[in-house]
Amino acid sequence: MNYADRLEAAVRAKGNPCAVGLDPHTDLVPEEFAVARDPAAPRAERARAVGDFLVRVIELVAERVPAVKPQSAFFEALGADGALAWERVVRAARDAGLLVIGDVKRGDIGSTAAAYARAFLESDEAPCDAITVNPLLGRDSIEPFLEAAARTGGGIYVLVRTSNPGSADFQAAGARGEPSLSTRIADAVAEWGAGLVGECGFSALGAVVGATHPRELARLRERMPRAPLLLPGYGAQGAGPADVVPGFVEGRGALVSSSRAVLFAHRSRPQLAWPDATRAALDEMVGAIKGALGNPR
Amino acid sequence: MNYADRLEAAVRAKGNPCAVGLDPHTDLVPEEFAVARDPAAPRAERARAVGDFLVRVIELVAERVPAVKPQSAFFEALGADGALAWERVVRAARDAGLLVIGDVKRGDIGSTAAAYARAFLESDEAPCDAITVNPLLGRDSIEPFLEAAARTGGGIYVLVRTSNPGSADFQAAGARGEPSLSTRIADAVAEWGAGLVGECGFSALGAVVGATHPRELARLRERMPRAPLLLPGYGAQGAGPADVVPGFVEGRGALVSSSRAVLFAHRSRPQLAWPDATRAALDEMVGAIKGALGNPR
Repeated sequence: MNYADRLEAAVRAKGNPCAVGLDPHTDLVPEEFAVARDPAAPRAERARAVGDFLVRVIELVAERVPAVKPQSAFFEALGADGALAWERVVRAARDAGLLVIGDVKRGDIGSTAAAYARAFLESDEAPCDAITVNPLLGRDSIEPFLEAAARTGGGIYVLVRTSNPGSADFQAAGARGEPSLSTRIADAVAEWGAGLVGECGFSALGAVVGATHPRELARLRERMPRAPLLLPGYGAQGAGPADVVPGFVEGRGALVSSSRAVLFAHRSRPQLAWPDATRAALDEMVGAIKGALGNPR
Repeated sequence: MNYADRLEAAVRAKGNPCAVGLDPHTDLVPEEFAVARDPAAPRAERARAVGDFLVRVIELVAERVPAVKPQSAFFEALGADGALAWERVVRAARDAGLLVIGDVKRGDIGSTAAAYARAFLESDEAPCDAITVNPLLGRDSIEPFLEAAARTGGGIYVLVRTSNPGSADFQAAGARGEPSLSTRIADAVAEWGAGLVGECGFSALGAVVGATHPRELARLRERMPRAPLLLPGYGAQGAGPADVVPGFVEGRGALVSSSRAVLFAHRSRPQLAWPDATRAALDEMVGAIKGALGNPR
């Protein structure tokens, strides 16, 4: 089944378009999992603690949101033990009925991109439902992912405009009167994704656009009317509920992702036990997004 | 010690600037390691066979070249078992006195990039000497790698112009009279790397420029006079010995990388045992590059 249709169904079932980013900064985990940040502890134990924490987070959020977005960097920082934790977390999320968007931002020449597609979309052990990819290497670096998506019902989010300040350096740059790189990538996404449109009207080829750039978001959404958007930057990175609205088409077609504000909610709510802090932060986010979309579903 | 100085010393010691890419396409491994391509075999066994093969390749090439360049995608395609194989291969290469350039092409927002730097440059278990990074996310996505390089004596190769045909889609594009994206990235590399220049006159911040674009290579080299260049695309991707020459400055400052033509030399030399084919292909490459540089050292 087409990824866009699966995503649409999941958003409808949960009644909101929010995704929880699983970015396990080991320094920030709740006290219960403190071994994760102990440099003297064996790496396997640290990685196990990271996995334990995220599996608990998945249990807390599974009934509330349609998707989670694990960030591979924090797993890779724990080496092969982190890779085991990644597979455990991806499986736990899928078993809990969540869509898993692997935030891996891979991009390489064709034969290598095909290996990345096998790693993340076609894994026997722990396949993601979708992944983020970096388009710098051009069309032939994206095609293997498109082919894998067609085979597996997977989804792809191409980086079009990232949420960080440095995104202005190259992505936003365009000569006078010429389109910016983001604009050119957006046009490519619209073209490349045309063959992967599902029954819901959206494609399995989507785009990442930071919610931290709401004006750009509106402009880029117009150029990619059928791309499901992944909107990072909500919460800790500074975007608010109103900022994400331009990413939606009649309330559909986008996912808002928050990582630190939910995952490490205990740090700003020290009076609560960490699971209560996480639930409270997530409920607050879901309420705010639904409110901004004017759709109390 | 600064990466550029370590690299310079290694090139001088081996008498050539060649790197062997370790891209273990499981379909192409010699018959002796055929379990790597058996989809029915347990993944751990497949990954072990990949590691066995590459450890043997490392033994074959260690006396001949200064560096190897493992490509992470092919390890990641084997999941957590592949991650173990990666660590084994990186350690084996370092133990054999080779510089290890992790071809990982990572790039992400600052806090995430810092986790990738920990994963690859600051790993306790299997640190790379240098890695490739993707600059699409801008300066704040590169800074954590620069900081890690300063701490560890590591190196960074920023993608400036990749070797694949699709590199023309976004990297080569510039409006009339305006610089291409590759040019803008090259200028940034020259600027960002100024603080990491070693005694040899080159910086620890280098650039990837495909040898498949020799004219671009000459132009980009001029804009990045102090950047060590990594030149992929030699051999199977079509670049020849003369094509790499513009990447060098008086015979110094670049590494030429070949993957498939060396690693899978047995496929084009079926009359030879695979180790003999690998040695022959590598000796041929080394001879051709030294000949083109007019420097029989």
